Amino acid sequence: MGCAPMGHILYDEVMRYNPKNPYWFNRDRFILSAGHGCMLQYALLHLAGYDSVLASFLHILSFLLNLKSFRQWGSRTPGHPENFETPGVEVTTGPLGQGIANAVGLALAEKHLAARFNKPDNEIVDHYTYVILGDGCQMEGISNEACSLAGHWGLGKLIAFYDDNHISIDGDTEIAFTENVDTRFEGLGWHVIWVKNGNTGYDEIRAAIKEAKAVKDKPTLIKVTTTIGYGSPNKANSYSVHGSALGAKEVDATRKNLGWPYEPFHVPEEVKAHWSRHTPQGAALEAEWNAKFAEYEQKYKEEAAELKAIITGELPAGWEKALPTYTPESPADATRNLSQQNLNALVKVLPGLLGGSADLASSNMTLLKMYGDFQKDTPEERNVRFGVREHGMGAICNGIALHSPGFIPYCATFFVFTDYMRAAIRISALCEARVIYVMTHDSIGLGEDGPTHQPIEHLASFRAMPNVLMLRPADGNETAGAYKVAVLNKKRPSILALSRQKLPQLPGTSIEGVEKGGYIVSDNSSGNNPNVILIGTGSELEIAAKAADELRKEGKTVRVVSFVSWELFDEQSDAYKESVLPSAVSARVSIEAGSTFGWAKIVGSKGKAIGIDRFGASAPAGKIYKEFGLTPEAVVAAAKELC
Amino acid sequence: MGCAPMGHILYDEVMRYNPKNPYWFNRDRFILSAGHGCMLQYALLHLAGYDSVLASFLHILSFLLNLKSFRQWGSRTPGHPENFETPGVEVTTGPLGQGIANAVGLALAEKHLAARFNKPDNEIVDHYTYVILGDGCQMEGISNEACSLAGHWGLGKLIAFYDDNHISIDGDTEIAFTENVDTRFEGLGWHVIWVKNGNTGYDEIRAAIKEAKAVKDKPTLIKVTTTIGYGSPNKANSYSVHGSALGAKEVDATRKNLGWPYEPFHVPEEVKAHWSRHTPQGAALEAEWNAKFAEYEQKYKEEAAELKAIITGELPAGWEKALPTYTPESPADATRNLSQQNLNALVKVLPGLLGGSADLASSNMTLLKMYGDFQKDTPEERNVRFGVREHGMGAICNGIALHSPGFIPYCATFFVFTDYMRAAIRISALCEARVIYVMTHDSIGLGEDGPTHQPIEHLASFRAMPNVLMLRPADGNETAGAYKVAVLNKKRPSILALSRQKLPQLPGTSIEGVEKGGYIVSDNSSGNNPNVILIGTGSELEIAAKAADELRKEGKTVRVVSFVSWELFDEQSDAYKESVLPSAVSARVSIEAGSTFGWAKIVGSKGKAIGIDRFGASAPAGKIYKEFGLTPEAVVAAAKELC
Repeated sequence: MGCAPMGHILYDEVMRYNPKNPYWFNRDRFILSAGHGCMLQYALLHLAGYDSVLASFLHILSFLLNLKSFRQWGSRTPGHPENFETPGVEVTTGPLGQGIANAVGLALAEKHLAARFNKPDNEIVDHYTYVILGDGCQMEGISNEACSLAGHWGLGKLIAFYDDNHISIDGDTEIAFTENVDTRFEGLGWHVIWVKNGNTGYDEIRAAIKEAKAVKDKPTLIKVTTTIGYGSPNKANSYSVHGSALGAKEVDATRKNLGWPYEPFHVPEEVKAHWSRHTPQGAALEAEWNAKFAEYEQKYKEEAAELKAIITGELPAGWEKALPTYTPESPADATRNLSQQNLNALVKVLPGLLGGSADLASSNMTLLKMYGDFQKDTPEERNVRFGVREHGMGAICNGIALHSPGFIPYCATFFVFTDYMRAAIRISALCEARVIYVMTHDSIGLGEDGPTHQPIEHLASFRAMPNVLMLRPADGNETAGAYKVAVLNKKRPSILALSRQKLPQLPGTSIEGVEKGGYIVSDNSSGNNPNVILIGTGSELEIAAKAADELRKEGKTVRVVSFVSWELFDEQSDAYKESVLPSAVSARVSIEAGSTFGWAKIVGSKGKAIGIDRFGASAPAGKIYKEFGLTPEAVVAAAKELC
Repeated sequence: MGCAPMGHILYDEVMRYNPKNPYWFNRDRFILSAGHGCMLQYALLHLAGYDSVLASFLHILSFLLNLKSFRQWGSRTPGHPENFETPGVEVTTGPLGQGIANAVGLALAEKHLAARFNKPDNEIVDHYTYVILGDGCQMEGISNEACSLAGHWGLGKLIAFYDDNHISIDGDTEIAFTENVDTRFEGLGWHVIWVKNGNTGYDEIRAAIKEAKAVKDKPTLIKVTTTIGYGSPNKANSYSVHGSALGAKEVDATRKNLGWPYEPFHVPEEVKAHWSRHTPQGAALEAEWNAKFAEYEQKYKEEAAELKAIITGELPAGWEKALPTYTPESPADATRNLSQQNLNALVKVLPGLLGGSADLASSNMTLLKMYGDFQKDTPEERNVRFGVREHGMGAICNGIALHSPGFIPYCATFFVFTDYMRAAIRISALCEARVIYVMTHDSIGLGEDGPTHQPIEHLASFRAMPNVLMLRPADGNETAGAYKVAVLNKKRPSILALSRQKLPQLPGTSIEGVEKGGYIVSDNSSGNNPNVILIGTGSELEIAAKAADELRKEGKTVRVVSFVSWELFDEQSDAYKESVLPSAVSARVSIEAGSTFGWAKIVGSKGKAIGIDRFGASAPAGKIYKEFGLTPEAVVAAAKELC
């Protein structure tokens, strides 16, 4: 493996970590952005003393021999490194470019915390972030986005190794990747070092790391030219070693070539003895830091409490009292504005809340008014300016969230542009990162910008994604409820779909209702048996309520249900679900300014789903709603056909 | 408008086009990547003589005066330029970065056609591609991906103007974008020119274009430093002019400042007279080219026929006979391999078919065996190597598809990585580009790579997207059917979800069946009234068929339905739908290795959808199928509960 020396030097000489407590706060972070090199990482974690991988280490070696236990059901050594499977793995990589962007997030987190909490006599936050990335990561746009930001922010403690092996899956990189990476990174504001012999140049790698550490105002890219499959006499420098086993014969030849006389599965005593020092060393490092933190706690009580909350993830008692509440008399407002009221209320009680927008802060309404911008020279601030880099933004937030359990990063753009960052959102869901996605302009209600900017299928597309909470609040109370849910769900991301247009504060909405996902907002029936159930989400809940008023005038019994989060509703008891959507009532009409895909499950085969199954149009919101048939009249007409 | 001089020079002096035939083949292409400058483009199209925009031109001017007809329902001047709304607009931009990537596709198309069809005595293909992009486009990862490829391919006839106005929506680009763009583009292999005074430096812009044309082996970036809102005394150089009207007072001040004494809506006679030459000039250019093509046709008959097919989009008679067919005796194979058989069969009869993969050609099975690689020095070839740049790949394919109606670009990656390119796929759907997305490794059936690589929600997410055909063929005949459908649907993209694993050739599958979206594969009932209907797609159709065998052995009447494309089935007559899924039969079981989201509509409230509503896992395919309960036994058990 050509990248072995980099990994070796990092785990054996450079990084500070405690194998017995993989989540010790002040550890250096290491990310293998090119997820396919995971065998190396698993092997190093084992040597470094991480217990949990021990059992699976044999799987790794066995892979080299074409045996059948690496990447198996239930193992701790899956096909790509995943933080939720393997202790010591910081994030979930595999999809190219995510890891380097996660690393930018981790380095941002460190720079922010250091600026916010360090004191002249006690630098309580102080670690590096290391990452190895390959040609594939370099080609992905997300890595350019994240690295442009790393340069802009001057993340001096981010050190990236570029494993320059000239091989990707389709063969020599000559066929698709001939740009000058060094020059590009210089353009991005990085310090660039080239290690020409990465296969055996241990001293050059050591010197490069030293140089990188000396450059404090820029991140460093160490381009390490290597040979993929180094050591294998017949397969080195070919794409065939990328994802396939060498085969028994070539393993044998490689062993001979490298002068490795030991049996398979055998780690020589001297190697064990050499690496065994990491266990006591790591424990000592942590103990030293604990003592330092005890001092810090004594001297800087308030700051220590805040930092502790970020380190542990414990929410301050009574934090939810900060959530604003509304009555029907409160002024009508866009949920994007109500979202900003929540963010600004919550930032006072949640020390780990920080975030920003992809160049739409004033449209997404995400500015924290008490704070300035997180910038190169003001990293203690909490408004992050991501520029027009949605994909990088999402992955950076994943890195922040996984830095410490008390971080609550949020990020924002127009809902339709989740398409630009969907891969990062999926990783949030998979790696259990609590990121809050503040997605405004959530329907044709945005009006004139037209179909390129109007989401249609997006609600459905996220309702289908595992482990994501898709929330579409209808007014102030529901927006507060959405934030409560988002903060409390520590192991999954939340997406808030918010309106550009003003919405009234509706009678019957509540934070508690939102926590159940779907709930009754109004009802003039008794015995859980209305003539018809009208179901709305977000901006269309108002339309459902208006239609109900009409129908009630005509003597019907009508229930209005807010269906703010399908996932939360699914998690309620059968009894609760039956109390909201009684199976005996088949007359159901839903209305939502988005694709009707999926609604059949809620309205049933006899019900009717009103929505939009085409692209939007450029016109004022009111006009499009009317033209597309999203009106109280349409709901009334549909209801009358059913009851 | 700071970018006005660039646009002015292009439309008035540089570009070759025919306003009376906006789609004349050999025109120069112009893309406004920063969609928000669309007012300028609409105004120029009007001045240049494009009739169709005339009626809407008043809308544009009126916008400046805060009146209410720009961006209105039914107008030809929507909020962002869209090819399907406004003749003379080449592609659909608005979402940042798409336009520059489209431009790379257009330039690729020109380079390919020129190399393939030009003769020493007749250079029948010969045009430039111009694009204006802004700071927002530069920040997006997709633009770096596409521009890295443009440099790699040496697209010398691609000339990009970077409107360097230092302002994005959130304010000065200083807050998030301080990289050195010139250096980055040099790294990407571009020729870079800087025009320091873009507001009034007409001669400098002209000189830059001349220099760019002289550099034939590299694309050129002309960085043009401008002032946003140039001319407005109080609002120039501020983000407030980005998407908002100036207001009547400031319009007045701007007129005075620029010395523009005319009434609103008035185009002075001398301006009209000056621009009016474009109509006869354009007609003459086209006539000249037509004569040249007539000569070409006489001398190079075969090539002319091919080129004409690409220009007109007419499919060669009998092309569909090239589609391979299979019998149940044909060997079991992965649909990704069957897809390659189709591609290699079709490329012999479809002159506009070309494409490739994002560094997974040997996994996606997309190589055209008769052809070499499209590269800088071999642009006549038809295998495109996109590198690991999914998003750029999709948008480049949109550009190719919109270059000429006979182009059929295809592109490939793992199905899960549609997440990286979703924004480009959505634009394919919106702008009516016939791109074939060859998406392999379409489920947990890919096995060991694990949950980061296993799609779950992806089928549902595309079924919810308007104007996309989502096809999941089960075997050879269905794969051929999917290709037939994809080629015939000229106004929408198709996504083919294909298996990594081997699948048997099933009795009862057919190309004709696929064309209907859903159809009966086998049935032992009569009178359109089976005991149970089993519905499968792709690799799970085999499981449904096996379950049917079991149930029939036990005396049940069972219908097996292949549901390869929901969209096509939706488009069938009610009578046909009833003949496949009779409403009287509520005992229905579906099986698909993906999210069950949406299936309630098909199986009804009494039916059962078997699928996967969690993330996948790293293990061999067979093991995961079993652990996740995707087995004939599970289908049999579910069916027995219903009938």
